[in-house]
Amino acid sequence: MAPLKIDHLAVVVDNLDAALNFWQGALGLPLGGKEHNEHEAVDIAFLDAGGARVELLQPIGDESGIAKYLAKRGPGMHHICFAVADLDAAMAQMTAAQVELINTTPRTREDGTRYAFVHPKSTGGVLVELYEMAGEQA
Amino acid sequence: MAPLKIDHLAVVVDNLDAALNFWQGALGLPLGGKEHNEHEAVDIAFLDAGGARVELLQPIGDESGIAKYLAKRGPGMHHICFAVADLDAAMAQMTAAQVELINTTPRTREDGTRYAFVHPKSTGGVLVELYEMAGEQA
Repeated sequence: MAPLKIDHLAVVVDNLDAALNFWQGALGLPLGGKEHNEHEAVDIAFLDAGGARVELLQPIGDESGIAKYLAKRGPGMHHICFAVADLDAAMAQMTAAQVELINTTPRTREDGTRYAFVHPKSTGGVLVELYEMAGEQA
Repeated sequence: MAPLKIDHLAVVVDNLDAALNFWQGALGLPLGGKEHNEHEAVDIAFLDAGGARVELLQPIGDESGIAKYLAKRGPGMHHICFAVADLDAAMAQMTAAQVELINTTPRTREDGTRYAFVHPKSTGGVLVELYEMAGEQA
C-alpha cells in the first residue's frame, strides 16, 4: 500500500452548534459543509483540517448507532478514517496480520464507495475505518 | 490564525507491540521512532500518517495520568493535537470564544516548546492540545 493519510476524524457530539463554536469559531477550521442525513439519523458538519477533515456528528433521535454510542459513552472521538487505494488489498493485509475486521466483506455506501471497519481490539482501542478512494491508483 | 493541520493523534494502549502489529504491520504506517519516557512514565511509538502522526502511548506503572486514564477508560483515543504558530494568540482566541482551557497559561516541555489543552466540555468531548511550532510564522 502507498503511505496512508488520515481522511477524517469523526466526533460524536450532543450539540452541533456548541461544538462548532470551538472547531470553527475558536480553532478557526473552515466549515466545509453541513448535512442532515435522515438515513443515518445524524446531522453532520465537516471541517477542513489541512487536508484531513473533522466530522462532527450529532444524532437525530435515540435509535441510531450514533445515538446509542452517545448515550453509552458520552460525547467524544468516535473513529478515525484512512483512505486506501485498494480496499480488498488492505483488508487482505489486515487478515494476514491477524487483525480483526468488523465487516469481513466491504460495505458500500449509496454513492458506491466501499469501506470496512477494523475492530478496536486489534488497534489499541480505536475504531478505524478504511475507505476506498474512488479513482485512486492501486 | 493560518489554517491548522492535525499534528498528531494520541492513542493510549495497553500493549504497544500488539498495537504496532496493526498500525505499523497491517496498516503500514512508517514507524518514526520509539521513546521510553521515564519522566512521563510512558513508552511511546510515533508513526507517520502522511504528515500527521499517530502516537501510541503505553503507560509504565500505575501512577501516571496516562495509566489512570487507561484504568478508568480503557484503551483508545486520548487527544488530538493541532500545531499553532502563535500559542498566545490561539489561547486568547479560545478565551474570547468562551472556550474553556485546562491550563490558562502555557505549559512548557523540557525542550522549550509550549502547549495548552482545551477542555473536552468545550469541544464536544475531545481533549484538544494546541502545540506551538518553534520557528513558525506568526
